[in-house]
Amino acid sequence: MEEVVLLAHGSGGTLSHELVEHVFLKYLDDPKLLELEDAALLELDGGRIVLTTDSYVVRPLFFPGGDIGKLAVCGTVNDLSMRGARPLYLTAGFILEEGYPLAQLERIISSMAETAARAGVRIVAGDTKVVEHGAADGVFINTAGVGIVPPGVDVSARNARPGDVVLISGAVGDHGLAIMTRREGLEFESPLKSDCAPLNGLVEALLAACPVRTLRDPTRGGLATTLNELAIQSVVGLEIDETQVPVHEPVRAASELLGLDPFYVANEGKLVAIVAAEDAERALEALRDHPLGSEAAIIGRVVADHVGQVALRTVLGTRRILDMLAGEQLPRIC
Amino acid sequence: MEEVVLLAHGSGGTLSHELVEHVFLKYLDDPKLLELEDAALLELDGGRIVLTTDSYVVRPLFFPGGDIGKLAVCGTVNDLSMRGARPLYLTAGFILEEGYPLAQLERIISSMAETAARAGVRIVAGDTKVVEHGAADGVFINTAGVGIVPPGVDVSARNARPGDVVLISGAVGDHGLAIMTRREGLEFESPLKSDCAPLNGLVEALLAACPVRTLRDPTRGGLATTLNELAIQSVVGLEIDETQVPVHEPVRAASELLGLDPFYVANEGKLVAIVAAEDAERALEALRDHPLGSEAAIIGRVVADHVGQVALRTVLGTRRILDMLAGEQLPRIC
Repeated sequence: MEEVVLLAHGSGGTLSHELVEHVFLKYLDDPKLLELEDAALLELDGGRIVLTTDSYVVRPLFFPGGDIGKLAVCGTVNDLSMRGARPLYLTAGFILEEGYPLAQLERIISSMAETAARAGVRIVAGDTKVVEHGAADGVFINTAGVGIVPPGVDVSARNARPGDVVLISGAVGDHGLAIMTRREGLEFESPLKSDCAPLNGLVEALLAACPVRTLRDPTRGGLATTLNELAIQSVVGLEIDETQVPVHEPVRAASELLGLDPFYVANEGKLVAIVAAEDAERALEALRDHPLGSEAAIIGRVVADHVGQVALRTVLGTRRILDMLAGEQLPRIC
Repeated sequence: MEEVVLLAHGSGGTLSHELVEHVFLKYLDDPKLLELEDAALLELDGGRIVLTTDSYVVRPLFFPGGDIGKLAVCGTVNDLSMRGARPLYLTAGFILEEGYPLAQLERIISSMAETAARAGVRIVAGDTKVVEHGAADGVFINTAGVGIVPPGVDVSARNARPGDVVLISGAVGDHGLAIMTRREGLEFESPLKSDCAPLNGLVEALLAACPVRTLRDPTRGGLATTLNELAIQSVVGLEIDETQVPVHEPVRAASELLGLDPFYVANEGKLVAIVAAEDAERALEALRDHPLGSEAAIIGRVVADHVGQVALRTVLGTRRILDMLAGEQLPRIC
């Protein structure tokens, strides 16, 4: 372990996991935290609520398809949704850099309000801190969220079982590549857009169609890292068919140009779902019937072999292990 | 209104209120947010929960009597307590600067764990982001919290009524002055210590003794700003007796040296309580019986005159209006 914080500690990949395990969980050892879910499931007054938090430090603050405000609402709504919960209430904490233009702050806040309205969640508590010029980078936002879990719903990263089927709700890599091309000042004929979107409606449609074992949104670290987390947490192996994972052509082109792999790039409007084999077609149909899932696909299955690992059948027909993200590819992607 | 973010927008005083009203509430207009309470009271599954958030950017990260980790737990526990709630669950979001020493991060996290255990709350969800060296200042922490409100409890900044009595749970100014003397590298014979402490136990003792109308912890902007907020939100006037407000001698001395007024300096382990006149003595006794309230005092009363204003009877026997904090006195005090 290095002795100072590295950018890679924020990657979502192996070093993030190391920091969490060796530093955070050493002291903060609540059983709910040790579960490493996207949101904590809690008993409260007889009901089941979920609670989650995320800070947002994306750079630039405005990007094709969104901005930090939209991202801060979607990210937290999505983390709640990944437990099968109905997101209800958000908090918003702002850290502002002295000198940041108020007109741009207004655009960000207006975007948060619009996204919250679209997602049907209420922003009910807030806080603002200001630090000196140079002590932060424009605007950082934290959102925490509360949702309720409908009776009978039990969605967890630990629930996948051998024989289950793995689905993705659409093409991967759009958010990360949109940010990177914007950041690098690269111009493309068909500009890339972030997929940033609240997924609670899509999850509701899916849950109405069939029982769901596992949901996770492949954000930092991308699809590859998320699949590895699910394999580890469910103590299973995953077999993924590379040819079945949708990737938009402009994403593929930008990835090649920038030397990135879309499987490791953050998404902000996609989910991985795992369901029983007999529910797979129903799940696929439910996803495809929703505007945010029209490109959904079955991408693989859960196996009892190679526990904790993800095997990828490549486009060339070969088979290799798909690792978790190592190092830091894209700092401040969310 | 200035066109860029100013340090004074984070003061907790008049400019903070302007930023919130003219920028944030213009778009984020949920009725719960418009109430401007320390924590939002929500109906959930038939029960009453409260939800709050605060980001912490205190400088330096370690100070006499505490550190950013302890502060981040106490601040949010206290905001929940100020609605009469029993704090249950916290989330913790970290923004780390690349290069920050891991050993110091461990100290901060260990302090959070210790404070959470002391307060009897659980940290159940977390998030970590890392930004480049120079894009943040060491460590910023956001905590959000959830608590439940016991049946029959109705504590709000809007509940004070003419005839009620105003109490403070102890001496004011310790936190702000401890930070400032540390920051300025000033040495004092009897070093000042922050009063940073979780107040849920004190609130529980108070609620067991008598009905409570209003609670608020005088953090940013200090006692003077908090009293003004309560006068405005309850649509009443307040009469405060300056001689009755406890101020520790070293705080008074440091204030004079630094040109600060302890009434405008942040506290992190004190509360203002407003109760009916017939309950005042019982409330005072309950506060004094608790280790965190041993210096509690009755400091004034609620009146129907000069609505929205706080009148101060000074040590000289004169009477003047005690305004809300204007400008920025102590940036990054919490």
